[in-house]
Amino acid sequence: MPETPSLHIVEVAPRDGLQNEATPVVTRDKLELIEACVAAGVDRIEVASFAHPSLVPQMADAEAVIEQLSEAALARAIALVLNQRGLERALRTRIREINVVVAASEGFARANQRATRTELLATARNVLADARAADLRRSLTISVAFGCPFDGEVDPHEVVRIVETIREADPACEIALGDTIGAAAPGDVARMLELLADLVAPNELRLHFHNTRNAGIANAWEAMRLGVRTFDASMGGIGGCPFAPRATGNIATEDLVWMATRSGYRTNVDLERAITIAPLTTRLLGHEVASMVARAGTFPAGTSSQPNPSL
Amino acid sequence: MPETPSLHIVEVAPRDGLQNEATPVVTRDKLELIEACVAAGVDRIEVASFAHPSLVPQMADAEAVIEQLSEAALARAIALVLNQRGLERALRTRIREINVVVAASEGFARANQRATRTELLATARNVLADARAADLRRSLTISVAFGCPFDGEVDPHEVVRIVETIREADPACEIALGDTIGAAAPGDVARMLELLADLVAPNELRLHFHNTRNAGIANAWEAMRLGVRTFDASMGGIGGCPFAPRATGNIATEDLVWMATRSGYRTNVDLERAITIAPLTTRLLGHEVASMVARAGTFPAGTSSQPNPSL
Repeated sequence: MPETPSLHIVEVAPRDGLQNEATPVVTRDKLELIEACVAAGVDRIEVASFAHPSLVPQMADAEAVIEQLSEAALARAIALVLNQRGLERALRTRIREINVVVAASEGFARANQRATRTELLATARNVLADARAADLRRSLTISVAFGCPFDGEVDPHEVVRIVETIREADPACEIALGDTIGAAAPGDVARMLELLADLVAPNELRLHFHNTRNAGIANAWEAMRLGVRTFDASMGGIGGCPFAPRATGNIATEDLVWMATRSGYRTNVDLERAITIAPLTTRLLGHEVASMVARAGTFPAGTSSQPNPSL
Repeated sequence: MPETPSLHIVEVAPRDGLQNEATPVVTRDKLELIEACVAAGVDRIEVASFAHPSLVPQMADAEAVIEQLSEAALARAIALVLNQRGLERALRTRIREINVVVAASEGFARANQRATRTELLATARNVLADARAADLRRSLTISVAFGCPFDGEVDPHEVVRIVETIREADPACEIALGDTIGAAAPGDVARMLELLADLVAPNELRLHFHNTRNAGIANAWEAMRLGVRTFDASMGGIGGCPFAPRATGNIATEDLVWMATRSGYRTNVDLERAITIAPLTTRLLGHEVASMVARAGTFPAGTSSQPNPSL
């Protein structure tokens, strides 16, 4: 028997998935979505963002969502924090893990967070230090790590520099590489992991892909093949950054888990159960979701939560 | 400078792409689609099928299509031939390359071609021998090579046995592995290539993926990484076998070419030109196409027909 590597899935539908949706989703419905994802076996889950409510109105109920999480969901919950004001709000809730975001490009830093890249990195360091002092688990996402809607190509060495800074400032902070606009192809992923190899092992990284140009699942495959074990994904493949023009959804949790499972990886997600979430998402958002596995079903039918025994 | 491997694209939109579409497409429109694909740089192109017109009405005008091809299109054209009757029709046209199909499963052989797998293989051998005598170029597609909608899992050793038979009968016949219903994940692709390694080198194989469960581009990436150089794809990602329940389209040519180009491969397809075909396809079929690159555009914009120089 070959070894069966295990993947960790960070579910982002309730945050990255919802924030770009025009249809407002009320707190009660968000909680239903979150608890359904947790029941399906996701390892961690983005539940809220402490962005300013006027900029991201869909996330205005962050405190209310966190207040009403079950203990199982709270243990897995992550909230997005963009600045000190966000951290202050987070510290008044029960949340135990925060995710901080810095942009890899000047154009995106300006458009998304109204600051320079350097200012964002300084803010992130301060927020991480305070979150560490408050004993919160911490992760940092480098957005537009593979390409920017405003500046075009992003020099991978810029990403390396950010990783260096954060590894030095807070070695226990998990680092996520965000392909915010689906600009990466597998060759980019391989090169990025190679450039980062001396700073951080692939199995300590987390990768976040969007399927904008249909390469998201291929990128995830290349990353897992090269040792990455933690992936962001959203049930149904919903999502997209409100500040990235023509952004489309995250890779779908169902599609990622099916591909990985059939390729011999283990996850904690019950795929048949995950698929039942798509109708809920469709009802909340008023449109069909992008996940292909949710539509086509698994292959072979009904037996796809165990790694492919023939591989 | 690392080497820049080259891929060959076999465009299947005018055949596999159209045959499952409910909207009839007239000969003149097919010719417009074919010539547009050829002008965009596809290496070869499926232009027609000599299936019985009552079974696949969309292909009833095979002779008329071939008759009116430009010389550039004719030089690249492939016609599907399922039996001796089909070959007789093909031999009365100008077509220079035929593609024969055998099923890897009994269930699909019966449903798709009303014969046993053994009968199909015998027919294929006869057709190939006659086509060889007539000096036609030949390829054979093994359908449902990674899974069957009727029988479920397909034993890869069945595929190996078919490959053995054909390599012995007609060594100059190109062999294509068809994932007719999008059942494969990259782990399956790697295992299949490994099982076939003693019989046929990856760069002599051709692979045909459907994106039914969103793994098609990942499968193509895994195959090209392992040395496969020829891929079927359809402009817009249209298509699906009329005899495979809930089948969806082929991987989109635009999406495949973008992913490959950005990952450092060279193709003969002009991606910006390829993208202009999607509106034509949408007009002919009356619905939006599945290609994500056709919708989102390339990244970076307008410069994506050259292999990524930074890799």
